[in-house]
Amino acid sequence: FKYIARSCKEILDNHSEREDGIYYLTTANGMKYQTFCDMNTAGGGWTLVASVHENSIYGRCTVGDRWSSQQGNNPNLPDGDGNWSNRNTFGLVESATSDDYKNPGYYDIAAKDVSVWHVPNNFPMEHWNLAAILRYHTENNFLRLYGGNLFNLFKQFPVRYNIGSCSNRGPAIPIVYDHGNRESTRNLYGPKSRNEFDPGFITFRAINNERGAMAICSGVKPRGCNSEHYCIGGGGYFHPDQCGYFPSFDWDRLGREQGWSASKEMTESAVLLFYR
Amino acid sequence: FKYIARSCKEILDNHSEREDGIYYLTTANGMKYQTFCDMNTAGGGWTLVASVHENSIYGRCTVGDRWSSQQGNNPNLPDGDGNWSNRNTFGLVESATSDDYKNPGYYDIAAKDVSVWHVPNNFPMEHWNLAAILRYHTENNFLRLYGGNLFNLFKQFPVRYNIGSCSNRGPAIPIVYDHGNRESTRNLYGPKSRNEFDPGFITFRAINNERGAMAICSGVKPRGCNSEHYCIGGGGYFHPDQCGYFPSFDWDRLGREQGWSASKEMTESAVLLFYR
Amino acid sequence: FKYIARSCKEILDNHSEREDGIYYLTTANGMKYQTFCDMNTAGGGWTLVASVHENSIYGRCTVGDRWSSQQGNNPNLPDGDGNWSNRNTFGLVESATSDDYKNPGYYDIAAKDVSVWHVPNNFPMEHWNLAAILRYHTENNFLRLYGGNLFNLFKQFPVRYNIGSCSNRGPAIPIVYDHGNRESTRNLYGPKSRNEFDPGFITFRAINNERGAMAICSGVKPRGCNSEHYCIGGGGYFHPDQCGYFPSFDWDRLGREQGWSASKEMTESAVLLFYR
Repeated sequence: FKYIARSCKEILDNHSEREDGIYYLTTANGMKYQTFCDMNTAGGGWTLVASVHENSIYGRCTVGDRWSSQQGNNPNLPDGDGNWSNRNTFGLVESATSDDYKNPGYYDIAAKDVSVWHVPNNFPMEHWNLAAILRYHTENNFLRLYGGNLFNLFKQFPVRYNIGSCSNRGPAIPIVYDHGNRESTRNLYGPKSRNEFDPGFITFRAINNERGAMAICSGVKPRGCNSEHYCIGGGGYFHPDQCGYFPSFDWDRLGREQGWSASKEMTESAVLLFYR
Repeated sequence: FKYIARSCKEILDNHSEREDGIYYLTTANGMKYQTFCDMNTAGGGWTLVASVHENSIYGRCTVGDRWSSQQGNNPNLPDGDGNWSNRNTFGLVESATSDDYKNPGYYDIAAKDVSVWHVPNNFPMEHWNLAAILRYHTENNFLRLYGGNLFNLFKQFPVRYNIGSCSNRGPAIPIVYDHGNRESTRNLYGPKSRNEFDPGFITFRAINNERGAMAICSGVKPRGCNSEHYCIGGGGYFHPDQCGYFPSFDWDRLGREQGWSASKEMTESAVLLFYR
Repeated sequence: FKYIARSCKEILDNHSEREDGIYYLTTANGMKYQTFCDMNTAGGGWTLVASVHENSIYGRCTVGDRWSSQQGNNPNLPDGDGNWSNRNTFGLVESATSDDYKNPGYYDIAAKDVSVWHVPNNFPMEHWNLAAILRYHTENNFLRLYGGNLFNLFKQFPVRYNIGSCSNRGPAIPIVYDHGNRESTRNLYGPKSRNEFDPGFITFRAINNERGAMAICSGVKPRGCNSEHYCIGGGGYFHPDQCGYFPSFDWDRLGREQGWSASKEMTESAVLLFYR
């Protein structure tokens, strides 16, 4: 263990490391883990804490859907697996584009901003940055208002079925693009969805017409209530055909960018979440 | 790796560490892992080796029920997942109150006694001790008679459906309370259950009327054969409505302490298992 | 971390370690892990990278079937869990005979040959070698032709339902026996299967009459198209009664060596895969 740091930001600040790659981190309690540090984007110091990966949109709310429910689409399990606001962890850093990933940094790091990379499934770590179809970050320190990380933010805004109506949405934070722009963001989602959101934001805890809760609307701020077509993650219950990470990205036709359906690029990419 | 120790007891004895927290341990074969050491209770030296956690009593014998069966309630799988007596491991120490946990110490450590903490779900490690609703330990060195750990004990007393009848119960060991007492133990279970057990013990491998096997009756010694209401863990088959970790803690009404139903405090706490 | 090596071969060559056991390895990106090195068989330097374990042939293509499909027997998921050709990892080295195991070496190591051990379920590491019912290795450097490891080989020969017909089999490589021989290999499989394969080989990506894909035919080269009776691992869809790791090893009678059914020894052993 070369350093004893709680985040990539600490390694950057205290040891002037500027190389992207895998570093050891520790939690406050002394639990060690390895993750990827982005030491260059917008000043660097970004810690990869999680990824949301859907290997197949056909396996809805079954084994492997750790960011919604592995126990079926069940109104008796409104929180689903509850991983947006608990201390469970899973996966390893090198598998972050091949499977779900969540490390202890997700709940342990005290951060100010997030960065998000959409990386095509199964790309190896050394190519994540260049392969990403969308990369952006926030820079207004919004996490300070919500407990310093998504673990605490989602305690305030539970990703839970029937917790409220569409108007009880969580914060929508403006973003700065590192790769892509508002127009390219729009085009990653379905034609009908484009009428219902504003690009240039990341939104937390959206709720749809059917009172299903979604965790993250990446790149957009919803104006309407059909957020199952452009938001990811979720509680344990959705409209019967919509459970999963990308609850209804394939409403019209899978990956064909028709109607409400998102693009193939989007549905076949993992969503990597960083803190700084 | 500060020390090369097989257990928290070794760290206490050889290095006089008295601080509760996370330490590195190693198996006989040299596999390293981190876990929590309780260095203070009754002389200290207790190694956390496992936790039994039920996030929802609605998800019975489905994904996540590693201490009974993740493959359904199936008489063809009498051992269920078999984790009480195999070398599989899962989870990380900081998640021990948010998910099931089992580390290599479970099968690797040669111990004499057990300690058990019932900690409300999702409490962070630094508060486990004070938050626990029940804490106790054994002190008669009983594990020496059963191979030095639960892995070996449960090889002698398999947690398997149809292995025997209610009278083929495993050992019931007297306990010393560290937090709580016989009366508070009684009250954690349902009113009807209280007529059927004696508090002040920990019992291993109970069998109920329907020949279902349970691993641990925490705090109590059964006198009757309805142990599904106050014992946890299990083989792969139970009466259809009773599969799961807490096979039938909600028989009458979930968490309302009515009839056979256990208290909300009990059903919403993780059961942490320590060796010394 | 005593050494910084990418494989057991490197440790053998650079540090002259000759003791079988657990060592630390690192990926090209610097991710650390522990695995078992066989430092003696045929010159030593073999890295354990994976094991295929079926705890019960009754739990077909359900939770825990990571080498075929955990999401059911589903033609819409032709790749199943996809673990033969992705970077997901699972399990720990000491559990390799009690559960599935896959470490980063599976995709990270650049190797020339494979070695395979069939070890009865739940045997502890220190007895794997002597307990194995079959041990063999290749020695013609065939992996050089297929990208240096099984991760790359199975990218060229996908383990996917409906990818081709029985004649589209992948490579069959001659083996050298370390324990067992051609005759004992034959006897591990069912009487009817013996008419359909040649012992003395390891075959990759077999396809059966129903267009189901299997990953490995251990010890044999198929001549016929009923490979579900003697090959393991698979894509996400099989004939309804045949999904799982050992898709149809119990066709006639489980573990009784009748008709197409393999021996009890075979179906109750984990298949350990090594690289050198």
